[in-house]
Amino acid sequence: MEERVTAHLRRAVELAEESVAAGGGPFGAVLVMPDGRTFEASNRVTLENDPTAHAEVMAIRRACRELGVFELRDATLYASCEPCPMCLAASLWARVGSVYFAADRFAAARAGFSDAEFYDYLAGTADPSVMPVEQLPIPDAERPFDRWRAAPDRVEY
Amino acid sequence: MEERVTAHLRRAVELAEESVAAGGGPFGAVLVMPDGRTFEASNRVTLENDPTAHAEVMAIRRACRELGVFELRDATLYASCEPCPMCLAASLWARVGSVYFAADRFAAARAGFSDAEFYDYLAGTADPSVMPVEQLPIPDAERPFDRWRAAPDRVEY
Repeated sequence: MEERVTAHLRRAVELAEESVAAGGGPFGAVLVMPDGRTFEASNRVTLENDPTAHAEVMAIRRACRELGVFELRDATLYASCEPCPMCLAASLWARVGSVYFAADRFAAARAGFSDAEFYDYLAGTADPSVMPVEQLPIPDAERPFDRWRAAPDRVEY
Repeated sequence: MEERVTAHLRRAVELAEESVAAGGGPFGAVLVMPDGRTFEASNRVTLENDPTAHAEVMAIRRACRELGVFELRDATLYASCEPCPMCLAASLWARVGSVYFAADRFAAARAGFSDAEFYDYLAGTADPSVMPVEQLPIPDAERPFDRWRAAPDRVEY
């Protein structure tokens, strides 16, 4: 078990190194389905002008696209570095079963990345003025949900 | 000011309603740049087999792609419903300036969506066995960061 985890994490770290050589960010991820099918990805934020193109998100997107599904139940995600809150929540939405990582958010911070800061922001322990978030209730704000509940052909997720 | 916010939120709610009619999820978003350029999107999770295709993420991706940038400094994001942790962290990575939303995570929960649960998970107040996350340190886990720091042509983000 631990040997298999180590092997996938080694591959994720290798992808992260290859990513730097290719002009991308220093992050790699490997997603493994319960039947063993494996999807690899690396960080493409600056290469694709997509701030959401983290290695973990890219692996999830790739697996879903290639499998024709929007959920990856019981998949295991291996990341070269601790997934940021975006990647963690993306994994939750994809119904990933478990996550392993090698380096941690503090190693990422030492290399100039904001993961640890954003964890603090989500935990409510960072200065919220970095990005104020405010609710402004408007009439009919819940109407899309009424329509959703009334849609007989809705695909739940 | 409040009138402008209301107008953009109304449009986001309208996009959410149109999305249901088109077979998508009941969420819409409008991203407005400081110069007024505006990018609209709606939830495409089930339509595109992409669990990360929330309205907010789609608006960020679209704006970045069309503008050829990976950051949206001082942009304002208007969402029909409270952004989930993935969308909030995506907004942080995109360096969005501020976020407004209409309906809240509890309205989403009543319609069957997991946003509130995932907020609890990120806050550490939910059952972590939903998706265990574990670090397994391996030798050379930080080597991608060493390579990153040594890369003279690295594009920081």
